[in-house]
Order: sequence, then C-alpha cells, then structure tokens
Amino acid sequence: MAGISSPSIPVTDRTRLKRLPKRGVFDRAAVYDILDEGFVCHVGFVVDGQPFVVPTGYARVGDEIYLHGSAASRMVRSLAAGLDVCVTVTLVDGLVLARSAFHHSMNYRSVMILGRARLVTDPAEKTEALRAFTNHIVPDRWDGLRPVTSQELLGTSVLALPIEEASAKVRSGPPVDDEEDVTWPVWAGVIPLSLEPSAPVADDHVGPDVPSIDVRQAVNRRRRAG
Amino acid sequence: MAGISSPSIPVTDRTRLKRLPKRGVFDRAAVYDILDEGFVCHVGFVVDGQPFVVPTGYARVGDEIYLHGSAASRMVRSLAAGLDVCVTVTLVDGLVLARSAFHHSMNYRSVMILGRARLVTDPAEKTEALRAFTNHIVPDRWDGLRPVTSQELLGTSVLALPIEEASAKVRSGPPVDDEEDVTWPVWAGVIPLSLEPSAPVADDHVGPDVPSIDVRQAVNRRRRAG
Repeated sequence: MAGISSPSIPVTDRTRLKRLPKRGVFDRAAVYDILDEGFVCHVGFVVDGQPFVVPTGYARVGDEIYLHGSAASRMVRSLAAGLDVCVTVTLVDGLVLARSAFHHSMNYRSVMILGRARLVTDPAEKTEALRAFTNHIVPDRWDGLRPVTSQELLGTSVLALPIEEASAKVRSGPPVDDEEDVTWPVWAGVIPLSLEPSAPVADDHVGPDVPSIDVRQAVNRRRRAG
Repeated sequence: MAGISSPSIPVTDRTRLKRLPKRGVFDRAAVYDILDEGFVCHVGFVVDGQPFVVPTGYARVGDEIYLHGSAASRMVRSLAAGLDVCVTVTLVDGLVLARSAFHHSMNYRSVMILGRARLVTDPAEKTEALRAFTNHIVPDRWDGLRPVTSQELLGTSVLALPIEEASAKVRSGPPVDDEEDVTWPVWAGVIPLSLEPSAPVADDHVGPDVPSIDVRQAVNRRRRAG
C-alpha cells in the first residue's frame, strides 16, 4: 500500500544503534529476508504503563506486516486503538563460544519495527492477509484449503503495520577473543543453530489418498540464502 | 534470593489469560523448564511512551532471571532505572496445519515475566551471573575458560528480574478442525520444529591438542523432556 519504497529504510533516533553500529542493517531487502524467514514475532505494546511482549504469527506483504488475533485479545485491542507498537523478529543462528566468558555471544539476525498499526476492515484485504499468514507457514498452502467463510473473516481481527521505521541487527562469524587469549586451551568457535523440521505427524483424519507433505521443501523454500 | 518459592505462581489480572485459558500455565517448574530451554528472551520496556522489544541472552538462577549488557545500552539504562519491564521467552515447537486457514496455528511454549529489575552491583553476584550466562549456553563451559577479570566485571551491567508475576502459555497437539472439514482432501497435522545444532565450526586459533566440543550432548542436556 505504500507505493514504491526506497531500497534503504531511513535511520531515525529511535532505530539508530547506539552501540556496535556495525551490526546495524537498514537495507530494505535484508530486513525483508529476515521477516520472511521467521515464523514468530514479538509484539510490544503498553497498557497502563506496563509493557507487554506477546509472541504471535505474522506475514509480510509488500511494505507492511500483518498480524492477527481475536478481537477480544489485549494485543488486538491495544493495536487497533492506535497505540505505539514495536514488533521484533529474531532468528537465532548460532552460539558463539569464546575463550573468555566476556566474549561469548550469539549469532542472530533480528528486525525491529516501530509504528502504529491500522485495523484492516475491508473483507478483500482481510482475505489477502489470511492467505499471506497461511502461505507464510507453508508456501502455496492456501489454494488446497477449505475456502474461508464470511463468519471466519468476521471472527478474525487483522492489523497492518507499515515497515517505515525499522532496522535490522545482525551478528555473524567467529568469536572475537582478546589477542592474548587465543592460545587458551579450550575449544572456541561457533555452534550453528537453526529451526529444523522433523517428520510430519498427520492427524487422525488424513485419508490414505491424501498426499503427504514435503516438509523439507516447504521449509527450505523460505530460506533464500540456503 | 527469594527464599522458598511456592510451586505455583500467583495469577494476577495482568497475567490471567483472557482468551483460551486452557493454554495458561502457572506451575513454577513448567515455567522454569521453558526458561531453561530457551537461548534468547525478548525484553520489552518503554522510553518516551514508545515500547521497545530487544532480543538478548539471559539465564535463570533460582527465582530470578539475569540479563546483561553494556551500561551504555538503552535497555540496560531503562531497566537499571527501575522501569516496568516484560520479558518473554518463546520456544517454537511446530507448525499446525489444518484444513481451513482459520485453524492454522503454531505449537509453542512461551513465558512472560512482568516486573522491575534491580541492578546487580556486588562483584561476587555479578560473577555468579556471568557463570550462569555462560553455562546456560553450554553446560559446564565456565570452568574451562580464561578467568573473568575485574575490568570485564566493571564493563558488564547485570540486571536481575524476580520471577514473581509470570505465566506460561502452551499450545501443543494436532490441529482442531471443524467437524465438517475433516474429510477435506488436504494433509493436516503437525510439522514439528526445533532449534537444532549442526557441526561446530572451530575458529582459526583452536590448536590440534584442544578437544572438540560435543554439540549434541551440550544441547540435549538443556532439554529435560528430550
């Protein structure tokens, strides 16, 4: 909905990294790759001065991300009221083991989006958002499903948050030990971590004629960088 | 520090689940199992009315979780000032694929802790916290490392958040389709997901006499439930 977006996201006082600025990423394509690979975001909002951080699914469409939930939920009510929100997506890529406790770290890619959401009320856009949620979980899943009903559309609240004030933070590569420590006799390096699927578990109603799901392909297609 | 804690965490208006109360867990042991399995938490705090959600490492010791960072970071400054905070840890366990878009879901376990942190200033407690961070990443890692220096202790800010107002949310099991949908000809069930390690990547300084790291054992020891 934002029309043509610039390839880089403007840095603001709120998204500029005060520390370790080399970890900051404001390239729109890099931010979107992280958003497209994650399954869960953490939504931060404030009620009576108390911040809440709620994990939930999401999907990116163009320069917005969609969130959804029950109209009765605290999160949906807060966001629909136009409260300031922060949505963060974090991918954990590895444990960084150094020779001193101080230099232990994690490899990760995270995106933080600040702004205010709008409540999506148009049924066509709501349907598009539901399609995006579904295909974000498994690509092309939507087309094989029982079509969505108007009652389901009414029962789901959809929110759209523009990706205007946003930044990514990335840490990658080996540990950075102090020079005098590199001969310390302990293993140091990276243990890569990734969210991996295991064998799918069909529910009790899947008939013998229903084709199984190709999990590896579904998950790998999410990862542009392999 | 909290002495003897009760086996259940009191439910408050802020942690009671308004929706799907069957997903709520207030058993202290279950909450701690989730905290002990995660690597990254999402810390929510408010600056000038804007919520921020920042991913960071953590470790639980008794009835508190420790966080750390540079004294200059926005997160540490905000938490050290005694602001209200929300710390959320989420473990993604699977994709729940139903026969309708509406009933797609995720299996997950999450913990939300509300409260105010205290800045840890005692060097002995700070050292204990650093040990906890390190051994939370890889069990028993601390003892083999180059000992921490007093400058490193000074350069690290440690915060402790009591686990007093907290709750867990858990979704597990197969999709719950509408009864009239169970014959719809599409695969439905769960694709289990877990954060898995792959082969460790030693850095350039690991000598031939340094024993390698047993990744599988290190990661599996974190998971009480297999």
